[in-house]
Amino acid sequence: MTTVGKDLDRLATHARLQEMAKSPYDLTAPNSLTPERIASYRCRAAGIDLLYATQRVDEPTLDTLQLLADESGVINQFLAMKKGAVLNRIEGYESENRQVLHTACRDIFHPPAQAPEASKQATDELAKLRDFLTELDDNLLLNDKGEPFTDMIQVGIGGSDLGPRALYIGLAAHLLPNRRVHFISNVDPDDAHAVLQELDLSRTLVNVVSKSGSTLETLTNEELVRTAYSKAGLDPNHYFLAVTGTGSPMDNPDRYLRSFYMFDYIGGRYSATSMVGLVMLGFAVGYDAVIEILLGANDMDRAAEEPEIRKNPALLLALFCVWNHNFLGSETMAVLPYSQALLRFPAHLQQCEMESNGKSISREGEPLRYDSGPIIWGEPGTNGQHAFYQLIHQGTTIVPAEFIGFRKSQYSQDIMIKETTSQDKLLANLLAQSLALATGQKNDNPNKRFSGNRPNSIIIADRLTPYSLGALLALYESRIVMQGFLWNINSFDQEGVQLGKNLANRLLTHLAGRRKDPSYHGGDTDLAGWAMLKAAGLMDDEQE
Amino acid sequence: MTTVGKDLDRLATHARLQEMAKSPYDLTAPNSLTPERIASYRCRAAGIDLLYATQRVDEPTLDTLQLLADESGVINQFLAMKKGAVLNRIEGYESENRQVLHTACRDIFHPPAQAPEASKQATDELAKLRDFLTELDDNLLLNDKGEPFTDMIQVGIGGSDLGPRALYIGLAAHLLPNRRVHFISNVDPDDAHAVLQELDLSRTLVNVVSKSGSTLETLTNEELVRTAYSKAGLDPNHYFLAVTGTGSPMDNPDRYLRSFYMFDYIGGRYSATSMVGLVMLGFAVGYDAVIEILLGANDMDRAAEEPEIRKNPALLLALFCVWNHNFLGSETMAVLPYSQALLRFPAHLQQCEMESNGKSISREGEPLRYDSGPIIWGEPGTNGQHAFYQLIHQGTTIVPAEFIGFRKSQYSQDIMIKETTSQDKLLANLLAQSLALATGQKNDNPNKRFSGNRPNSIIIADRLTPYSLGALLALYESRIVMQGFLWNINSFDQEGVQLGKNLANRLLTHLAGRRKDPSYHGGDTDLAGWAMLKAAGLMDDEQE
Repeated sequence: MTTVGKDLDRLATHARLQEMAKSPYDLTAPNSLTPERIASYRCRAAGIDLLYATQRVDEPTLDTLQLLADESGVINQFLAMKKGAVLNRIEGYESENRQVLHTACRDIFHPPAQAPEASKQATDELAKLRDFLTELDDNLLLNDKGEPFTDMIQVGIGGSDLGPRALYIGLAAHLLPNRRVHFISNVDPDDAHAVLQELDLSRTLVNVVSKSGSTLETLTNEELVRTAYSKAGLDPNHYFLAVTGTGSPMDNPDRYLRSFYMFDYIGGRYSATSMVGLVMLGFAVGYDAVIEILLGANDMDRAAEEPEIRKNPALLLALFCVWNHNFLGSETMAVLPYSQALLRFPAHLQQCEMESNGKSISREGEPLRYDSGPIIWGEPGTNGQHAFYQLIHQGTTIVPAEFIGFRKSQYSQDIMIKETTSQDKLLANLLAQSLALATGQKNDNPNKRFSGNRPNSIIIADRLTPYSLGALLALYESRIVMQGFLWNINSFDQEGVQLGKNLANRLLTHLAGRRKDPSYHGGDTDLAGWAMLKAAGLMDDEQE
Repeated sequence: MTTVGKDLDRLATHARLQEMAKSPYDLTAPNSLTPERIASYRCRAAGIDLLYATQRVDEPTLDTLQLLADESGVINQFLAMKKGAVLNRIEGYESENRQVLHTACRDIFHPPAQAPEASKQATDELAKLRDFLTELDDNLLLNDKGEPFTDMIQVGIGGSDLGPRALYIGLAAHLLPNRRVHFISNVDPDDAHAVLQELDLSRTLVNVVSKSGSTLETLTNEELVRTAYSKAGLDPNHYFLAVTGTGSPMDNPDRYLRSFYMFDYIGGRYSATSMVGLVMLGFAVGYDAVIEILLGANDMDRAAEEPEIRKNPALLLALFCVWNHNFLGSETMAVLPYSQALLRFPAHLQQCEMESNGKSISREGEPLRYDSGPIIWGEPGTNGQHAFYQLIHQGTTIVPAEFIGFRKSQYSQDIMIKETTSQDKLLANLLAQSLALATGQKNDNPNKRFSGNRPNSIIIADRLTPYSLGALLALYESRIVMQGFLWNINSFDQEGVQLGKNLANRLLTHLAGRRKDPSYHGGDTDLAGWAMLKAAGLMDDEQE
């Protein structure tokens, strides 16, 4: 089984696709969007339908994209990943050298697991979680005054924040009675204070999440929140939970009411279905819903093994992304959920895609000769229609779009106005936008012209539930790693965050130095950094 | 005074800038970021500093950008706008033909106003608002049970939602006691239900905001919320406020406790400092804070009249955007506030920029031969550092960035850890990211290399207050219209939203038709739309 990739531009199909990209399928031509095309350019897995008639592809393009997938060995690499291949590495250079096993967290329904040890670890943590949640539900675990806990603060950042938060908001309609979760992520002290001032800390658990146990923001916020507990006369150790890597500086059960573990084969941005997300979600929506999330994700993970592209939504999405980005020349991609509950899902995908695939070198350490990951952005529809859609319809830049929708609302609280429900209006708008972007419109008034041929896909499921949200998450996780395989990059490290961290530490040395000694002058060792501090007005008292 | 623009590529300076763009200032060269450059590439207005040493410009570039601004007549057009020129138009074609006078809303401090009638209308509405707020404060305006109102729901979308919401979140630290605001925008029925289920409606005012009085989402949500009030035994007319255009279908004071007006010379996305934003903000943070917002905005508006680019932050930002976008080739721009309170500020700017400048034709109706508005996106730092910054540091795409920060936190609740405060850490990270993006880093390990030369600016003020937030808002509004002048486009209409609306209505006809008559078949008149509804699974019961 091959796990070695080839550069995209060294694949035989690359040149063929370049040729095809000179005259891609014209969605604005008469009869280009036939009912037959719309009905057949559709693919389903784990309860999710992908409609792609509005992509600029036809049968020859799809056949060639199939060849690209085969030649690139995407599915073989995906299978190898799930079985524990060391894919987080750069050949010939110092790198993280780790397995990539976020899929193992949910490979617990169809034994034998593909990576049995990792799935065993996931199952063990789930059992601890179930026991913990049962104690809470049965009022066996209470605060110092003997009252049940009603609130939880999740302290984490990046992968310990965006994914969990997106899922929590997505499932707010499923909240258990008297359970709420709040999030503190930013080192901005106002972030923590705004959350803390709202809460009765004596009824609030704090879930501190950091794989390394050394994340600056998280440790700072943990201390800030511990101080608030102490000031309120509460012993933080009776209220704080930890989710961290075994052996990390936070792996100290004496300081926490409970400790849960994650493992070094799971990257932060892929960790939402590990304890990083599940402890908080279990508190909020219960253990059964957690299992439903995992089941949805696992069903999609299994569907993503399908080598035939027309039957594999994750693989199709990955290929459309490469087609639009590398061959048709788009720099960005918009994710547009027609569901207010998915408000923060684009921010999670932005992280997951851009931290994974925002790379410039191949897995062999060579500079890429083609573009890797696009910029991902988006906001919920219909809101976006009244905001930035102007540009995606009539701007000079083509923005490929992915619409996400659900046939039914979460709360089933609707109103009929002018013979249609709000949910009808929401879905009609979603479909209409897809058509409008694809087909465009001619007009004598140049300001009412729409050039069309703006590629997009529709992802639609029945209802936003723990199961469908798990499936949706896994769909995106898999398409992102598949894109990485196609680009032959390491989608699992993040060396690009280091330089800023190092420079920030240098500036902090100056700020601390100045605080201790008013005559401290950092300009001797760090001309630019010191000058920036001065220009920003942070050294106002300096006499020079 | 000229208000007619010239196409960017027809300006004499265009070719000179193209030539200069072949070898832009190299921020990675040794000694490129001298303390002198950092100290002098700085500009201040209305309490806001713009630091731009990390842009790829030097003195000759700045001189040429000055010539570009002069030749393009940016400031003359800006002055004409403020005085009431009809700039919302396309020459020779049917268009909105309106003045553009959002600046008049805050031109109330230094008489005579530049557009006296509009400023008079703004002052009259402010007086109504002050009276209304005084009645609330003095417990003269109470609910049917004689209790004060504690909550407000703002029902609006697009410009009636994103800007007001961004300002509200930005000023949450300034909330009056027992005052909260909630927002319903999306036609997604779950959006309204999630808000309504949290509230005691009898203590809640509803502020319905729609200039046209005919926005689908807003009218639908108004009805939905009115129904909820009626079901709760409350007369909606005693709880609902209206902000709308005079003569609109919503201009019916019998149905509202109070009606406030906005005017057709203010575009939705520029309306945050009209009654669209101020009624809600007045309720939340009080009349005095509203005046502070307007004062900050007016101070920046006046500073933006300065023709010398090195003294005008709005003009500099507009020119850097054009330089990076049209000459150095970037498609997007990231707005990165190092302030959790500015969480939704990028979404507002995304709307304001992309709806204004996502255009393909000039003000003479000719297709543009160059790119207009970029894609704007962003999330707060330090959060983003743990998410998408990987791509902006090491991706294959250059993303110009604008950092926004404040020297002091809003709540002044901080903690000292390792000799620095959280606020120190926040600011050190902001400055470090700016430096890291600019200078890059060499390394033997290709995965630890940073190519640098990623242009960015820093916008910094003392503290996030009503005044500074007003100034910041006006800074972005002005730079956006100035970019439109440079591109010679109409930044004030939004024809691009029409096609999707029309198609959505057609699809709604099908959904309504089918609901009334199970044998309804929309495929006879609308092949593609009907096929999309079927493919999306919304016509499941159909037998064909």
